[in-house]
Amino acid sequence: MEQVKEKASSCWLVDRNNISALFSDNALHINAILFPETASPVLDNLKKEFSAFSPTTAEKGKSLLFSLDSDGRRAGSFTLRHDEDVIEVSASEMTGLLYGWFELMKRLQLKDFSCGTYLSDSPAITIRMLNHWDNMDGTIERGYAGRSLFFTENRFIGDHEKTGRYARLLASAGINALTINNVNVHQVETRLITQEYRQALIELCDLFRGWGIQLFLSVNYASPIELGDLTTADPLDAQVKAWWRHCFDALYRDIPDFGGVVVKADSEHRPGPFTYHRTHADGANMLGEALAPHGGLVFWRCFVYNCQQDWRDRQTDRARAAYEHFAPLDGQFRENVILQIKNGPMDFQVREPVSPLLGAMPATNQVLELQITQEYTGQQIDLFWLVPQWKTILAFDTRLSSGPSTIEDLVCGRANAMPHAGVTAVVNTGDDRFWTGHVLAQANLYGYGRLLWNPAIEAGVLAREWSQLTFGTDAEVTRTVSEMLLSSGQVYEDYTAPLGVGWMVNPHHHYGPNIDGYEYDVWGTYHYADRNGLGVDRTLESGTGYVALYAPENCQLYNDLQRCPDELLLFFHFLRYDHRLKNGKSVIQHIYDTHFSGVEAVEGFIQRWQKLATLIPSDIHRNVAERLEKQKKNASEWRDRINTYFYRKSGIDDNKGRKIYK
Amino acid sequence: MEQVKEKASSCWLVDRNNISALFSDNALHINAILFPETASPVLDNLKKEFSAFSPTTAEKGKSLLFSLDSDGRRAGSFTLRHDEDVIEVSASEMTGLLYGWFELMKRLQLKDFSCGTYLSDSPAITIRMLNHWDNMDGTIERGYAGRSLFFTENRFIGDHEKTGRYARLLASAGINALTINNVNVHQVETRLITQEYRQALIELCDLFRGWGIQLFLSVNYASPIELGDLTTADPLDAQVKAWWRHCFDALYRDIPDFGGVVVKADSEHRPGPFTYHRTHADGANMLGEALAPHGGLVFWRCFVYNCQQDWRDRQTDRARAAYEHFAPLDGQFRENVILQIKNGPMDFQVREPVSPLLGAMPATNQVLELQITQEYTGQQIDLFWLVPQWKTILAFDTRLSSGPSTIEDLVCGRANAMPHAGVTAVVNTGDDRFWTGHVLAQANLYGYGRLLWNPAIEAGVLAREWSQLTFGTDAEVTRTVSEMLLSSGQVYEDYTAPLGVGWMVNPHHHYGPNIDGYEYDVWGTYHYADRNGLGVDRTLESGTGYVALYAPENCQLYNDLQRCPDELLLFFHFLRYDHRLKNGKSVIQHIYDTHFSGVEAVEGFIQRWQKLATLIPSDIHRNVAERLEKQKKNASEWRDRINTYFYRKSGIDDNKGRKIYK
Repeated sequence: MEQVKEKASSCWLVDRNNISALFSDNALHINAILFPETASPVLDNLKKEFSAFSPTTAEKGKSLLFSLDSDGRRAGSFTLRHDEDVIEVSASEMTGLLYGWFELMKRLQLKDFSCGTYLSDSPAITIRMLNHWDNMDGTIERGYAGRSLFFTENRFIGDHEKTGRYARLLASAGINALTINNVNVHQVETRLITQEYRQALIELCDLFRGWGIQLFLSVNYASPIELGDLTTADPLDAQVKAWWRHCFDALYRDIPDFGGVVVKADSEHRPGPFTYHRTHADGANMLGEALAPHGGLVFWRCFVYNCQQDWRDRQTDRARAAYEHFAPLDGQFRENVILQIKNGPMDFQVREPVSPLLGAMPATNQVLELQITQEYTGQQIDLFWLVPQWKTILAFDTRLSSGPSTIEDLVCGRANAMPHAGVTAVVNTGDDRFWTGHVLAQANLYGYGRLLWNPAIEAGVLAREWSQLTFGTDAEVTRTVSEMLLSSGQVYEDYTAPLGVGWMVNPHHHYGPNIDGYEYDVWGTYHYADRNGLGVDRTLESGTGYVALYAPENCQLYNDLQRCPDELLLFFHFLRYDHRLKNGKSVIQHIYDTHFSGVEAVEGFIQRWQKLATLIPSDIHRNVAERLEKQKKNASEWRDRINTYFYRKSGIDDNKGRKIYK
Repeated sequence: MEQVKEKASSCWLVDRNNISALFSDNALHINAILFPETASPVLDNLKKEFSAFSPTTAEKGKSLLFSLDSDGRRAGSFTLRHDEDVIEVSASEMTGLLYGWFELMKRLQLKDFSCGTYLSDSPAITIRMLNHWDNMDGTIERGYAGRSLFFTENRFIGDHEKTGRYARLLASAGINALTINNVNVHQVETRLITQEYRQALIELCDLFRGWGIQLFLSVNYASPIELGDLTTADPLDAQVKAWWRHCFDALYRDIPDFGGVVVKADSEHRPGPFTYHRTHADGANMLGEALAPHGGLVFWRCFVYNCQQDWRDRQTDRARAAYEHFAPLDGQFRENVILQIKNGPMDFQVREPVSPLLGAMPATNQVLELQITQEYTGQQIDLFWLVPQWKTILAFDTRLSSGPSTIEDLVCGRANAMPHAGVTAVVNTGDDRFWTGHVLAQANLYGYGRLLWNPAIEAGVLAREWSQLTFGTDAEVTRTVSEMLLSSGQVYEDYTAPLGVGWMVNPHHHYGPNIDGYEYDVWGTYHYADRNGLGVDRTLESGTGYVALYAPENCQLYNDLQRCPDELLLFFHFLRYDHRLKNGKSVIQHIYDTHFSGVEAVEGFIQRWQKLATLIPSDIHRNVAERLEKQKKNASEWRDRINTYFYRKSGIDDNKGRKIYK
């Protein structure tokens, strides 16, 4: 019991103190560990892995060999070999050794490593990034797992022990890039690029460098003004260009391998090039030019839309915004500028189609932006395992070329000839003792990293893998946890917003139901429910024409009421309550049915989890059990408000006669 | 122009520096001012009124004589006499002289004071109180006129000059009692009754005493615990009783004429006797007993309801709460305890029936609580003159006895034989240079005071009087201002919530439309709109039975759909959209019509006000003009949201074909 607890508190990754035991458990007697004779911070960390390790004195012991070869494989690739006398991790550079070591640990935990094993592996996606939305006062925007790991009271915390454990955890999930501060760069955070915070930043980069992770900063586009030097931030102004060049020259003098910057510009009241009547290409390229001499990158977010829309305006469609702002600029961005595009055209809703901008700019670097932190998906109170959603996104075929054209192809760099591609995501961690608030939300972070390494891995395999690494290999535990994870997204979708409609949440904090919460507001987020039906008409004939932003086949699919996938129907169409879905149910009956069944499913979670009480460490069991009770309360509120709201509008009774409050 | 400006900034009341001019303007040559030979802080202030006064040296000058007689009239009563040689203000005590002097100034301003005038006047209502909802950090709960006049940064400001002008202003409106702190008594404010703030409180009492105004404090019922002395606040606990007695003994030792306390207990998460399974009589009487030796009063608020109601619960009716909590306790309260009862059963909505608790406890002291600060009535951005609403309340006949039984009878002390009666109100002032943010909102404060002095005064007379005192006697100004004031309440009601339904506002701050903002919440505030109709069924037969709390005649009136006044229909009945009102219009057409006409009326205000540009000091004109523009924007938003919401629900077109967004 104690051992399981220890493992679980540090998640899926074996604590360094338990590595001896891991080899013993697998009856592997290691009597020598050999490293390449090279100086490297990664190697230093690898050596430290064995600081609590006692080599065997047995005659029949094996050597554990870390070796570098000159195969010139992709960064991070490794080979793992288990022979009679030797276990060898080999790679052509240091991070390969690191990932090979994590793979070895994983296989030992899963009892899936025997003599004769020989495997080669390499990451499918090059940029495997996380974005922290941490503020320097210690709060985290959309954070549900405590306070910032990096900042408090407008300074760096500097807890290298804890941050080191965190970096190791991320490295074990294959993460290789990280921003440490919120994309909404407030006053104090604007100064993160200045000398004022340089020493702390150097130390943090040193720390993460040892785990193969490059750091980036989110920067304020108006820095030249806000830091008090200039009166403009016009990207074509010579002084502005010189200001940024000078700024980055100084930064890279101190940290030569610094990653670069992430920018949220002209979005939700953030400053940007529009102020100066310049394009986003002008804005991003100016930063790219200043970073180019140092090999730095610009991640330029495409979350640009009119956040002062009039709800009366039925012509403007927020879903069109990113495409319309950026697609015309294809080919105009520098080679070290990467557009960062949210998975959907709106904003991390439970269900959205894939953004039409993804893949629509063949001459532009793109990364897909996901959200691991559960802003609209339960806030780490309600269970929502995001891997199935992400797999749906990766599998989407944009049909924008005759060559490889899925989102997976795009993020793996197969869809075009651009130098950079990958995925980034808003992370779900904080200083919570389990890192993620809800223990099972760890599976989102783990699943994210694993999926970026290998998008082909099945969701079910991943769910079982995380459960076994975290809770051990008890079959009932594995079955329960993995089945809960796998169904959790559908369950949440069932009891919240139906058929892709979105936005029926409480304004500001985004937890819990508020059906009209965003209906008459400025955010471009409407469901248009009336006494006849609901949904947003985005068709060619009678709607906003948004469907036309997709390739013809997808356009036709979504435009056609009969072919459009049920789960996205209300995203693309206004439907009458008595419209029949593909399963023959009316829209209103689907709403009632899914809301009743969603709550029942949560009750099922509670019962199933209860049965694991003796099989899971008590603090973890309680952590999840408490959240499941809150989830049930939330789910019941969703059920009743949604059902009442639509009953009052439609006047149509539930055909099963269940309780709907009038 | 400059003179008008000066007068307006200091409101309806002539600045002390202009008193010489006031007599000159009226061709009254005063060559001597005579006061009684008595020591009195009120007299000191009266003498100071003439500090900038230059007596005439003309032969035919008059004496201005302040004299005390021994008629033993009601406190505040005065006689005003204008003879050939003398102008005399006489009274049987000091505040009478004060009010007589203000009456004299008013008549001089209105050019309504000639030789031969002889008048006697006395206040109809004894308790003429104001409640400040000021917090010690300087904020004002529901305040729309700047920051607190009394507090900043958890201390008293101590600006005796400004506070003195404010006290003079209130005295000129006849106010004689005042609480200085919020009924929600937070942590720091709990300490206001302790020695820590005693010196500042003494000084403030000294200041207000000179204007005939007695001070009160809002106190925290849990003070014995929160101030750290006891572990209980149980009103029957001997230690608790002793604690309060000791507390008040010390307070009255320093301020022997202190007024007493106001208490919000067991309301919206405030502590109270319910914690100890005691009644509100137990709670209030314990405080009353401790105050009795000093002649202090307890104002005990009746705003007690379940603020954690489940919206699914159709049986619980918040409107019943105050009555049900308090009516059974009639006769159990001490003679120095006064129940403070909001005018309506809900919470200061634009339109509510009169609270059934008012007049329903013949053996209990009661005061009516009004709200001058415009929480739900436009927040001193939108114009809403409250006097007509208050007159409607005062005129309401409870029919609870065969004797005098209107609310006016109640607050004037004619309805029963209890020692105390009166009115209190949440005030609308702050440190704003015009005191009330919106200059025209001064008319609410003035109107409140005048109505308490004389409830019989016509609203139109009051509107003209305030306008003339503030802006001078120009006929166009008087007509425009008074007509705007008189129609403003109906206009606001027209473009906001229809037919008495209430609560269709943005949660928390309560400005602007949010039709479902309180519909699925915990506050007991629902309109139940569905595709067929809207409104709360409070009838005997099918509703919550709330109507039964009224005397039989009123119960029958409200219960009968055909007789219930239109403006309260949706408060008492759920009505179909096609239900015909008394004027033959359907409910839905009434909603559309009033919302279009409400906005048009605001546009009319703007045009009319514009015409006064050269007749009103420019800063004041701009103050109002800016607010009218904001009001128009707000009114338009109300119109469109309400119309769209109910069109979407009802599907019924406007019969005049005006623009309703779909």
